[in-house]
Amino acid sequence: MLNIGLIGAGRIGKIHGESIANRNPNATLAAISDVYLPAAEELAAKLHVANVYTDYREILADPSIDAVAICSSSDVHAEQIIAAAEAGKHIFCEKPIAIDLAKIDEALAAVEKAGVKLFIAFQRRFDPTFAAAQSQVVSGKLGDPRLVIITARDPAPPPIDYIKKSGGLFFDMTVHDFDLARFFVPDSEIVEVYATGGNLVDEKIGTEGGDIDTAMVMLKYANGASAVINNCRESAYGYDQRLEWFGSGGQVQVNNHHPDYAVVSTAENIQRSLPYHFFLERYIDAYVNEMQSFIECVDNDTAPATNGIDGRWPVVLAMAATKSLKENRPVKISEIT
Amino acid sequence: MLNIGLIGAGRIGKIHGESIANRNPNATLAAISDVYLPAAEELAAKLHVANVYTDYREILADPSIDAVAICSSSDVHAEQIIAAAEAGKHIFCEKPIAIDLAKIDEALAAVEKAGVKLFIAFQRRFDPTFAAAQSQVVSGKLGDPRLVIITARDPAPPPIDYIKKSGGLFFDMTVHDFDLARFFVPDSEIVEVYATGGNLVDEKIGTEGGDIDTAMVMLKYANGASAVINNCRESAYGYDQRLEWFGSGGQVQVNNHHPDYAVVSTAENIQRSLPYHFFLERYIDAYVNEMQSFIECVDNDTAPATNGIDGRWPVVLAMAATKSLKENRPVKISEIT
Amino acid sequence: MLNIGLIGAGRIGKIHGESIANRNPNATLAAISDVYLPAAEELAAKLHVANVYTDYREILADPSIDAVAICSSSDVHAEQIIAAAEAGKHIFCEKPIAIDLAKIDEALAAVEKAGVKLFIAFQRRFDPTFAAAQSQVVSGKLGDPRLVIITARDPAPPPIDYIKKSGGLFFDMTVHDFDLARFFVPDSEIVEVYATGGNLVDEKIGTEGGDIDTAMVMLKYANGASAVINNCRESAYGYDQRLEWFGSGGQVQVNNHHPDYAVVSTAENIQRSLPYHFFLERYIDAYVNEMQSFIECVDNDTAPATNGIDGRWPVVLAMAATKSLKENRPVKISEIT
Amino acid sequence: MLNIGLIGAGRIGKIHGESIANRNPNATLAAISDVYLPAAEELAAKLHVANVYTDYREILADPSIDAVAICSSSDVHAEQIIAAAEAGKHIFCEKPIAIDLAKIDEALAAVEKAGVKLFIAFQRRFDPTFAAAQSQVVSGKLGDPRLVIITARDPAPPPIDYIKKSGGLFFDMTVHDFDLARFFVPDSEIVEVYATGGNLVDEKIGTEGGDIDTAMVMLKYANGASAVINNCRESAYGYDQRLEWFGSGGQVQVNNHHPDYAVVSTAENIQRSLPYHFFLERYIDAYVNEMQSFIECVDNDTAPATNGIDGRWPVVLAMAATKSLKENRPVKISEIT
Repeated sequence: MLNIGLIGAGRIGKIHGESIANRNPNATLAAISDVYLPAAEELAAKLHVANVYTDYREILADPSIDAVAICSSSDVHAEQIIAAAEAGKHIFCEKPIAIDLAKIDEALAAVEKAGVKLFIAFQRRFDPTFAAAQSQVVSGKLGDPRLVIITARDPAPPPIDYIKKSGGLFFDMTVHDFDLARFFVPDSEIVEVYATGGNLVDEKIGTEGGDIDTAMVMLKYANGASAVINNCRESAYGYDQRLEWFGSGGQVQVNNHHPDYAVVSTAENIQRSLPYHFFLERYIDAYVNEMQSFIECVDNDTAPATNGIDGRWPVVLAMAATKSLKENRPVKISEIT
Repeated sequence: MLNIGLIGAGRIGKIHGESIANRNPNATLAAISDVYLPAAEELAAKLHVANVYTDYREILADPSIDAVAICSSSDVHAEQIIAAAEAGKHIFCEKPIAIDLAKIDEALAAVEKAGVKLFIAFQRRFDPTFAAAQSQVVSGKLGDPRLVIITARDPAPPPIDYIKKSGGLFFDMTVHDFDLARFFVPDSEIVEVYATGGNLVDEKIGTEGGDIDTAMVMLKYANGASAVINNCRESAYGYDQRLEWFGSGGQVQVNNHHPDYAVVSTAENIQRSLPYHFFLERYIDAYVNEMQSFIECVDNDTAPATNGIDGRWPVVLAMAATKSLKENRPVKISEIT
Repeated sequence: MLNIGLIGAGRIGKIHGESIANRNPNATLAAISDVYLPAAEELAAKLHVANVYTDYREILADPSIDAVAICSSSDVHAEQIIAAAEAGKHIFCEKPIAIDLAKIDEALAAVEKAGVKLFIAFQRRFDPTFAAAQSQVVSGKLGDPRLVIITARDPAPPPIDYIKKSGGLFFDMTVHDFDLARFFVPDSEIVEVYATGGNLVDEKIGTEGGDIDTAMVMLKYANGASAVINNCRESAYGYDQRLEWFGSGGQVQVNNHHPDYAVVSTAENIQRSLPYHFFLERYIDAYVNEMQSFIECVDNDTAPATNGIDGRWPVVLAMAATKSLKENRPVKISEIT
Repeated sequence: MLNIGLIGAGRIGKIHGESIANRNPNATLAAISDVYLPAAEELAAKLHVANVYTDYREILADPSIDAVAICSSSDVHAEQIIAAAEAGKHIFCEKPIAIDLAKIDEALAAVEKAGVKLFIAFQRRFDPTFAAAQSQVVSGKLGDPRLVIITARDPAPPPIDYIKKSGGLFFDMTVHDFDLARFFVPDSEIVEVYATGGNLVDEKIGTEGGDIDTAMVMLKYANGASAVINNCRESAYGYDQRLEWFGSGGQVQVNNHHPDYAVVSTAENIQRSLPYHFFLERYIDAYVNEMQSFIECVDNDTAPATNGIDGRWPVVLAMAATKSLKENRPVKISEIT
């Protein structure tokens, strides 16, 4: 039985807290911290958790705690990883580790030194459909990779204030797709990035937010395969999360999930309902599965399914995409860092 | 906040217990009883419930309990409904009330006398896809009903011992489809039943179990529409739960749900994975939704979405189908009781 | 090179005439007859055919003609089959042979005596999707049959005058589905029929046409399997032609064909276009394929894919269904004839 | 009634010849020429055409001929367009006009001077699904364009000898996709191209054929939208021809067409058959429709649906892609001329 402390009781913290407390028979949610204490207290009451703190260091100081789930704001992830590693706790951490390579490398070094496990939460890898598709790919029955097409569109753009602090579309949104691009071509690394983009959703995202809202990013792998990611901050028909992998032996497609599978035929057309509206609905199973995977890797002392290097790569790719967009040219990964 | 006592901590009791404890913010799981005390204790430990009993009457005796969820074996449902009603508790009860009309009517009379709410758990009505389809029907945009086609096939037959005690395919399996036949044609009652069936899965189900394993049942409604139900105890490709409603303005189809929505193309064909294997996986959302509906009807003092009469009808239809199969002729509902 | 004479230059005659003339490299359309000469002349001009007649007997008298395609009105099919057989011509004949068993048997006897080939045109057997599905069934990989569900709905009812002369829904519409019921369970014959139906589309079809417009027909096979056919003279969303075969090893579904496969997603829903509107569009490939099959069976001296017995059975089943509907009871096939 | 002469009786010439002769009531196939006379003679016999020539100039010399369909080898298209224009014939011409801009411009000038119609045959525009999708786009209901994703993969690579003469993948294969990229964003021209590619199918296509076999091409439109085309010379599951258009109001997808729409469920998975194997099967309707469109534009004296400029643009884009691939940088259209 793994005793886990939850750091951060916001939207994603609630999901992981509930998952630990109610869905994982091999784990106990032993403590909750949040810089805003009432959030931690409310969640603790609901989940029957006795220990509630403002300072996450109190969780780290508790010797009965085996592991922490870091669900705090992104800018303190690296610092908390380092502190948790030094306290000898295994670490589940929401992406990104940081958006600065030096900080990331410092965190990874601390983890390595402490010999604890670091699991970076890219939940799509644990979604039933993405996971089923990727398992077809790694089975080898579809042959060698040639082309990967990744689609990720949000139902509506976030507020301009969020965008200003987000690090930009490539760091905030594409980072998940960069991870998928690596997940679906596990045997070859990405060597070059070419990015385009602009403001087709809302001019203010550019003029006030300093960001693009629509993008295409092309990736070249060392083995000659290539991938293209397309992103948009707005989609009239809701959250669109798809992927197509094409190889020498065939193809696999990841399709959207829907709240229902009713089909209506009228004199006008044949209709079905829209996909799940956004990520909390779409990826609820994935969130549960990734926490399960983390708990199992600690329990069984196996390697985390997504480790620190997996957390570092998408940041490097986002940096390359940012540079490519600015200079309108393909950028080699070797140019970064 | 509704205090609910759970009667029965078996497979379906666990689902409803967890749903009450973890998924419904307006309810508390206040007590659990099971004739096998360790089952109740185990579930209580997991769900942080203090009061555990062997005898369900101790739950009824607790004045802080507002309602009970009856998840015990079918043969004691009627007795427990009557006792709960007399104790003034609102009642959520798994189907069937009983398979004897006199017992059903006695239970319904007790409920009426006590003025408590009785909610009969036909979970498919609360499944997102069946519910979405039915809401299209009742919206009127698809016109008047003409034909309904209901498909329900189990992945594999239960043991012969289960079949012997099941009351037969029509009571054990078709009962859900009879309910759907009523749910999708809410404005007209069924007046005649014609049933056929035989042993195409396993001869022993007939020779030892005294039951059929494959059936077609045709239903006529008072308004001239008709429905056909097809059932089988075994399906090579897994649990098959579909429905098609055809009316003057169009059609709506209920399709199967799948664990994943990946599609694989190879040199041989285009493939996808099988549907959810059985009812616990397929209807997990429906179980949560129906408990939510019960809690809301008590909280808001509204009529239960599925009441005692809805619980009685499928039993009447199963009786008519049994008679029709034996006599190989259409049987009028007026012949039953 | 097979010389074929076309008898009847109406709607279906035009299709088969064009198919012989333009789509079959091994056949020549050598002559056309129609009781209304201008129809024959118009088609002959378009298809570069020199010989045009009012009387089909002139085609039979031409020794260079190897075979005839009978596309005349149904009431003269039997007479023309007999005359063609006596003239030693191979015969392709549109369904039905007749709607009177004595006439059918007389025609079949004439064919047998003459030793010519008789091919009855049930085009759905030659449709790419129905054919692909049935080949899966006969391959054995889906095991033994248990249940067959056949759906056939027309976009709009014909005029009342047509209905009066049609022989009724079972002879006019269900006859194709009866044939499919045999095609998909080739190893066991149908032994009992139970039919229901009524007027849900238009009361006048009953009061003036003396017919039903909506029906369900249940069929039992000798091997214990059963089938259900559902028909309606009107479908808001167009021509609906589907089939599901369920057996011990799996299932195969025949789905509708559509003019296009575009899918539109908007803020309201996900839509696609309606299926082909009616049989001429839906079965154009099937008409070409069935003529090809006829030509090949003559060329190669093999058995016709659909013979006289296949033409007789659906009429027997329609008779049984008519009797069942009238008497509201299951009717054994042994009661017919 | 339009008298059309067919120039070239090869694979595509046969399709258009048959379409003119048998499928278009407003046109007559009046003459056929082919440098290999037996090919012309064979087709003429089948289609009842009296006039057969080796030299296409004899068709042009016939004053009863209104129009020509140029289906000869690509390298003589420009010359034949010029000669036909000078002879006052309307022109249907297979793509490409030429792969040299000077020749194209010379041909377009001759057409303009003669005042005849020039229709360039990009058949996908006339495919029912591509056409239905594009009509949704131009209706405006899906809003302004943001992203277009075009997929075109051939079932198997052509012989190396064909590749050597093909002009390269961008001229031979992508040219159709470049046309689609313009067809689906009709209000804004393409201003920049970035192309990547390599040999993932067969090294010999590179070493011996001097060509790539797999490619991704990104296009930027003047309005800020972008498109990506992905191509491969080999696809394990057959001919793959899809498109997705994403705009401010929604999305439309073009899906593959299949020979049949049967779906098989077994204990392993749910399967359907592969799409049509290659372009002759996939686009048979499109070939008929484009010829119909040409005949109608002459009959009604309206503008051709695809004119000379539409024929010129894909060649410009292929040139830009070739340059981009070589220099590994985005290339502006203004660099090409």
